[in-house]
Amino acid sequence: MNKTNINLLALAEYLDAELVGNADHIISGIADLQCASASELSFINQESYLQYLPESATGAVILNADFADKYAGNKLIVANTYLAYAKVSALFESLSLLPAGIHPSAVVAASADIDPSASIGANCVVGENARIGSGVRLYSGVSIGDRTSIDDNTLIHPNVVIYHGVSLGKSCIIHSGTVIGSDGFGFAPSRDGWKKIHQLGAVVVGDNVEIGSNCSIDRGALGNTVIHDGVIIDNLVHIAHNVKIGKRSAIAGCVGIAGSANIGENCTVAGAVAINGHISIADNSHFHGGTIVTKGNTEAGVFASTPPMQDVKKWRRNSVRYTQLDDMANRIKQLEKQLKALLPAE
Amino acid sequence: MNKTNINLLALAEYLDAELVGNADHIISGIADLQCASASELSFINQESYLQYLPESATGAVILNADFADKYAGNKLIVANTYLAYAKVSALFESLSLLPAGIHPSAVVAASADIDPSASIGANCVVGENARIGSGVRLYSGVSIGDRTSIDDNTLIHPNVVIYHGVSLGKSCIIHSGTVIGSDGFGFAPSRDGWKKIHQLGAVVVGDNVEIGSNCSIDRGALGNTVIHDGVIIDNLVHIAHNVKIGKRSAIAGCVGIAGSANIGENCTVAGAVAINGHISIADNSHFHGGTIVTKGNTEAGVFASTPPMQDVKKWRRNSVRYTQLDDMANRIKQLEKQLKALLPAE
Amino acid sequence: MNKTNINLLALAEYLDAELVGNADHIISGIADLQCASASELSFINQESYLQYLPESATGAVILNADFADKYAGNKLIVANTYLAYAKVSALFESLSLLPAGIHPSAVVAASADIDPSASIGANCVVGENARIGSGVRLYSGVSIGDRTSIDDNTLIHPNVVIYHGVSLGKSCIIHSGTVIGSDGFGFAPSRDGWKKIHQLGAVVVGDNVEIGSNCSIDRGALGNTVIHDGVIIDNLVHIAHNVKIGKRSAIAGCVGIAGSANIGENCTVAGAVAINGHISIADNSHFHGGTIVTKGNTEAGVFASTPPMQDVKKWRRNSVRYTQLDDMANRIKQLEKQLKALLPAE
Repeated sequence: MNKTNINLLALAEYLDAELVGNADHIISGIADLQCASASELSFINQESYLQYLPESATGAVILNADFADKYAGNKLIVANTYLAYAKVSALFESLSLLPAGIHPSAVVAASADIDPSASIGANCVVGENARIGSGVRLYSGVSIGDRTSIDDNTLIHPNVVIYHGVSLGKSCIIHSGTVIGSDGFGFAPSRDGWKKIHQLGAVVVGDNVEIGSNCSIDRGALGNTVIHDGVIIDNLVHIAHNVKIGKRSAIAGCVGIAGSANIGENCTVAGAVAINGHISIADNSHFHGGTIVTKGNTEAGVFASTPPMQDVKKWRRNSVRYTQLDDMANRIKQLEKQLKALLPAE
Repeated sequence: MNKTNINLLALAEYLDAELVGNADHIISGIADLQCASASELSFINQESYLQYLPESATGAVILNADFADKYAGNKLIVANTYLAYAKVSALFESLSLLPAGIHPSAVVAASADIDPSASIGANCVVGENARIGSGVRLYSGVSIGDRTSIDDNTLIHPNVVIYHGVSLGKSCIIHSGTVIGSDGFGFAPSRDGWKKIHQLGAVVVGDNVEIGSNCSIDRGALGNTVIHDGVIIDNLVHIAHNVKIGKRSAIAGCVGIAGSANIGENCTVAGAVAINGHISIADNSHFHGGTIVTKGNTEAGVFASTPPMQDVKKWRRNSVRYTQLDDMANRIKQLEKQLKALLPAE
Repeated sequence: MNKTNINLLALAEYLDAELVGNADHIISGIADLQCASASELSFINQESYLQYLPESATGAVILNADFADKYAGNKLIVANTYLAYAKVSALFESLSLLPAGIHPSAVVAASADIDPSASIGANCVVGENARIGSGVRLYSGVSIGDRTSIDDNTLIHPNVVIYHGVSLGKSCIIHSGTVIGSDGFGFAPSRDGWKKIHQLGAVVVGDNVEIGSNCSIDRGALGNTVIHDGVIIDNLVHIAHNVKIGKRSAIAGCVGIAGSANIGENCTVAGAVAINGHISIADNSHFHGGTIVTKGNTEAGVFASTPPMQDVKKWRRNSVRYTQLDDMANRIKQLEKQLKALLPAE
């Protein structure tokens, strides 16, 4: 781990920021205002952070012009603070690079096409006719199936499994324990029980896709499961066969998407949402956490289904009433009818 | 990958189908009507697919007698179209077989009993006194615990972990990342915190069971967790200690089943359902997606618990009312009482 | 597997129990009353178990003084039956120990500090400057990142992945497929799509923590994700970046906890609960299964959000009414107003 040290002048150039303060001040990390030391950099992207400024020991602050006069210390003034933070975070990444080449403990098929600049880590297994592009990093214990293609600069963390015939784009990141290309859940009922429908499609993942840990992405039954460019997926997400996810959509943790669902572009799906199969979701749709999405939509919107959390005693009483709702509605109707008969005619 | 090529005559014999058309026509894959080329086979198992027939370039269609006169091209007429599709899908499976024998990188205990026809893939680890039956295929990185038994023709995908003392039946398929036999969640409270209850049972899985990727199936506390013959389980499913799942039940993705729940035969549990512990579910029960199953049932039925998805503004207003339901019900009662006093006696 | 055989005298001493019966009787396992043979031990910690006593073939029973006169056979009388069961369960654990030392197939960085009493199993990978304490057991295929520290007597099951810079305390147990230290889900929106925020924090896990299989615990964005001493976590649990979980809290299966949530001590979170990000949960709070926790709380309580399961026909009718709740409430208000006008003034 080579600790990064960079002065504010270089940081300002990297961020295309206006520097006010000591250009020679050395920064070696990022921390929030409350924790930062003089060698660390902080950022302010909302008003509520300003309260921490007087007590902060931070070495410098990234902020935008609106907040610039609130702080007399070293500052980097940028147009988009959060994006500047994202950019600068890359400088302090502590994940070690793997050396190029194939670790002696890896088991690589003779027919696999491995770019010399790629890293194949300890105990990896790479199948027949697989293709590993330039700058690809497979950390330890990764399994790559036959005829699978991993495009340039994609990074795959330990113990990921990519089945046969899968295609991953450029500059993707796949976290540990994730499985891409397992069989879709397809079975025909018969008198002898469930008869397996072999899953003959594959998975196609675009460029710049990040997938968290312990996700399951199934191969298509016929045709492919497709994750388009720029999609981001959190942990423990289930994506069934033949799902399509449009560009730049974001899927939070514990989401499940059933077979052949078609998610548009730029959608945001909060945690623990479950999306039905064979439905289409319009571009730019947002779903609140825990929503059970039973129907598709054709226009962008914000949707939710979960009732509010209540104290358990109140919840019990209201829950009983929930099962009587139709009866309650009918009684209201009846009351309205009876009352109308009593009221003087308008 | 040896691409399968088969003519329609051979396909008709394999499916026990009536062939109408060119018996010599060669088929090399399956695709839906919209995508199929002349060398591919399609199927029609519902009326809505008929609309795609005029434009389809498909090489042949599997259908039943009712639809037979709708199509003039090559056709295979069968009694059960979907089952025929399942059968024919097996012909085009593209997963490579492993060669029989133990890969030199595998670590196999001397006391393990490995059938010579079994395949033990790269970097597998097989424990003491484990038993691996004939035709079993362990793909790479699979861990088999001590005294675990894998019966004939079972296929285990990369990086699966089966703990010690587990028993898997014949012709099962286990997908990557799945863990069978981890400790059940059993702890006794004490003044010093949670005291672990060692999980002394195991997991017994029957024949013809398929389990998807990244599932967790815990060993029993005392006695076993049992998955009966013909059960099918999708991805990211949690099965706690001492659960029993009856024959041919189907469990969709993201389902959680708590400890000692007893699921009957031929049940279908849709995605993201959570089933309480220590309850019994009758044979042939069905649960809608996202249902929280808090009580058992003794007769088959169809059950659900989730409220409908709504636009978020409407959802907010109705959610507030949900917390007032008991009050609303009481006010209806009061209105009925007051109104009754006003109405003329019947 | 060395089968444990222990006589009742030794068991009584181990449990600090009062023994009534044959001190020489040999016990070789634990089973519930209905299944136990004469060489097995059972326990009674609730009245409902008494019904099984007359038919039971059990070799001895653990119970407390209240139940002691209900059984004439061998018995061990203790103050806390369930805790005694937990203690005795450890005697019959059947997981084999690993021998101390590094398996020849493991790939261990030269700079890693491995205690000679630790076991590094087959195909493990241990990174640069990692520290493995005394008595630690890494089963096969475990990946330990650079600079990660595993403290004394912690046990890690096959194929677990611990990323770089993570710290695990003493006497923890981590089950297979679990990933600790994957990147938190942090991205800044930009005109070119999502820009990754590198996750510069780590994960700190205390002592005596048990984590089930296939869990995902993300590293902090800035600062750490922290799991305090004595926490227990079931399977398939998602813990996002910068979450804190207080001492001895228990998290059941399929729970998801979003970023920066702060869970107090001694909380119990039932299965399939989803907890929002950036909220604080008071010590000793309990959440029912499936609850969507959208708000924090400052006082301990018991909370729930899911409506009751219903037969699907009833559920459909009531679901429609759920979307009309606000309208129903307004109509009740209107009825009350109209009726008040009709009623004689009080």
